[in-house]
Amino acid sequence: MENLNINRERLQADIEALAAIGRGDDYGIYRMAFSDGDIQGRKWFIKKAEEAGLDFYQDGAANLHARYLWDEQKPSVVMGSHIDTVPAAGHLDGALGVVVALECLRCIKEQGLKVNYPLEAIAFSDEEGRFGGMLGSQAIAGMLTPEKIVNASDLDGVSLIDAMQNIGLDAMNALHAKRNPESILAFLELHIEQGPMLDNMGISIGNVDAIAGLFKWDITLTGTANHAGTTPMDMRKDAFMGLSAFASQLQRILDENGSPRSVATIGRVEISPGAANVIPGKVEFSLDARDTNPEVLNDLANAFRKSLSAIARKYELMFDFRVLSEIAPVKSDAGIVETIENVCKSLKVPFLQMASGAAHDTQIMANITRAGMIFVPSKDGRSHSIAEWTDMDDIERGANVALNTLYRIAGGQL
Amino acid sequence: MENLNINRERLQADIEALAAIGRGDDYGIYRMAFSDGDIQGRKWFIKKAEEAGLDFYQDGAANLHARYLWDEQKPSVVMGSHIDTVPAAGHLDGALGVVVALECLRCIKEQGLKVNYPLEAIAFSDEEGRFGGMLGSQAIAGMLTPEKIVNASDLDGVSLIDAMQNIGLDAMNALHAKRNPESILAFLELHIEQGPMLDNMGISIGNVDAIAGLFKWDITLTGTANHAGTTPMDMRKDAFMGLSAFASQLQRILDENGSPRSVATIGRVEISPGAANVIPGKVEFSLDARDTNPEVLNDLANAFRKSLSAIARKYELMFDFRVLSEIAPVKSDAGIVETIENVCKSLKVPFLQMASGAAHDTQIMANITRAGMIFVPSKDGRSHSIAEWTDMDDIERGANVALNTLYRIAGGQL
Repeated sequence: MENLNINRERLQADIEALAAIGRGDDYGIYRMAFSDGDIQGRKWFIKKAEEAGLDFYQDGAANLHARYLWDEQKPSVVMGSHIDTVPAAGHLDGALGVVVALECLRCIKEQGLKVNYPLEAIAFSDEEGRFGGMLGSQAIAGMLTPEKIVNASDLDGVSLIDAMQNIGLDAMNALHAKRNPESILAFLELHIEQGPMLDNMGISIGNVDAIAGLFKWDITLTGTANHAGTTPMDMRKDAFMGLSAFASQLQRILDENGSPRSVATIGRVEISPGAANVIPGKVEFSLDARDTNPEVLNDLANAFRKSLSAIARKYELMFDFRVLSEIAPVKSDAGIVETIENVCKSLKVPFLQMASGAAHDTQIMANITRAGMIFVPSKDGRSHSIAEWTDMDDIERGANVALNTLYRIAGGQL
Repeated sequence: MENLNINRERLQADIEALAAIGRGDDYGIYRMAFSDGDIQGRKWFIKKAEEAGLDFYQDGAANLHARYLWDEQKPSVVMGSHIDTVPAAGHLDGALGVVVALECLRCIKEQGLKVNYPLEAIAFSDEEGRFGGMLGSQAIAGMLTPEKIVNASDLDGVSLIDAMQNIGLDAMNALHAKRNPESILAFLELHIEQGPMLDNMGISIGNVDAIAGLFKWDITLTGTANHAGTTPMDMRKDAFMGLSAFASQLQRILDENGSPRSVATIGRVEISPGAANVIPGKVEFSLDARDTNPEVLNDLANAFRKSLSAIARKYELMFDFRVLSEIAPVKSDAGIVETIENVCKSLKVPFLQMASGAAHDTQIMANITRAGMIFVPSKDGRSHSIAEWTDMDDIERGANVALNTLYRIAGGQL
């Protein structure tokens, strides 16, 4: 089978054009969902779809669809990502996957390649979470409810309903964006890794076989606040010493109970009363743990509880925890993983089969269709930052893997 | 030598009377230096001194002196503490030492006991630090400068000069409060322990042989903030993991380099960026270490630096520290420690020879005269809190030890 190639110059021009939209004074990009920057980005997408002679469709959740050979009677092969960003974002998170999806449809169309299924390039609404995250893909997967829509609001208290009304849209229509699972054959997303592995190993392609699930806890250890000068070491109930003892066990707990993919992070810590001359009476901290295997996550949760409970006993502290969130891991479709692998081999591009530690629209789409993801390297693992960067050679390789994978799937080879 | 006894009922009545002054709605006491509560407390002291037929003298630093047999030609034996408090204070910190000093002078006067030296009971100004702390004793010890006075202000930005002017005093006169060291024979302070040792051991009297010195550092560990999901454990530069590793070494460092009196506390911790899903790129924290031996403090400082530097290397972090304060330890006068010991034995009251981990006016007075301290237990070690409590039996024992010690010193037995 002959290998297809994307148009590198056109792809690079599109990346740069989209990167110029929503640019702030600090060089960061501001395309938060339904903000002015996002609206400009949406207009750009629509113009590009029309220039390429693709059909354009906007669903009730304001997801943008560029379609080729649309046929309601056939399931479509969907590729996409998002053009909304976090504040002060880099230019690739989400945007790259949308631009590559457009480029893939353009290539297939202009080369008059035969496909058995319609193709869609989608830009999903609010992946980054101004109103909660992955709003557009959740709408398509039928995971929205009227309550969720009515209650969604951003950090400034602006409601989703007002934000969408502001641009002439009725947020409740997002419920109509739900797709019949049989209307989609497969879903593919290209994204930057947002982690350091590919960059560190010098590999251009990540073949994502799973997206990690996670649990996030809010943990409190309570001891006794006392004078730092007058309380002997052996009469203390120092909550921070308890936290330190637990933090020092994190790696052991991962080694004993986790997989090589397990990670755990204490990212937020608040100490009370928080004065240099007072022994901490209370610490409240976050624990974020991730793995691609639900049983491993369960084992980790048990081991963390056991460790915290033992430390609380030893340091004479009270221990309390609250589950802030739990997200189940999602597996990529084995057929798509295999197709990506075959394409990489055919293109003679080295790849790493790996997990995604971050959440993506793919995680949602996997609930209703066969899904897979292609990663390209993030320089130094940077993301959600203006330092976000991927070399154009890597982007070209990733786009070519995406194009050939999409073409094989659309040709019925899945 | 016959043992003297204080008047328990009178002492208790005085404690209760002073405890009623400056009482807030929350049951806490508000007698911050030169506040309305403090002024009421000062008026009460003056009235009590006059009722007892003692001479009253107020020096330039607004220290209150009740004097018995005052003679400018002779050095006086001074006993005292402070009646100002922290906000929401308990009723004993400082106040007890002033009330007991008054009671001791009253007992000696009303029993017509022969003394070789004049006696002074002093209530020092601003021990607790509304304007920096130990203002009155520093004035007497000649440690104030015009600059210190001009620059002193409270947390609300009220200057010491305005606060004193408000009650008709000129703050610059504090410079005139300086005493010739030869005008003082010895200094004695009775205070609650503000720590748990006496209460835990069931001992009524602490014979303080030293006041701990300390160093307080502000330490920064800098790593790299990265995505908590996408960054494998072995590619992290997690600043909080560095802090935890250090905190886990604290006890070992004290065991290896400290004395049984050494304590070290991490009381303040700030983590950046401080989000559950971001690996901490930076931690800034306090280290407070105390001991009564300056060489031990020096050894501890070296050991902490070595540990921090090794941890920074191991965890690939940058390590930086700033000395916030250093206070040298102060020894009590051996003769006074011995006198207190002899008095305790004579009274058949068990005592513990111990260090003070907290700062006191004694620490300042020791710079110009022979000084010693008597501790009474703090229930559960509580202080700077409305939960501050000492049993009246312990207070009586402490006051009797103070009275007999003062009488022996004033009788020329030091």
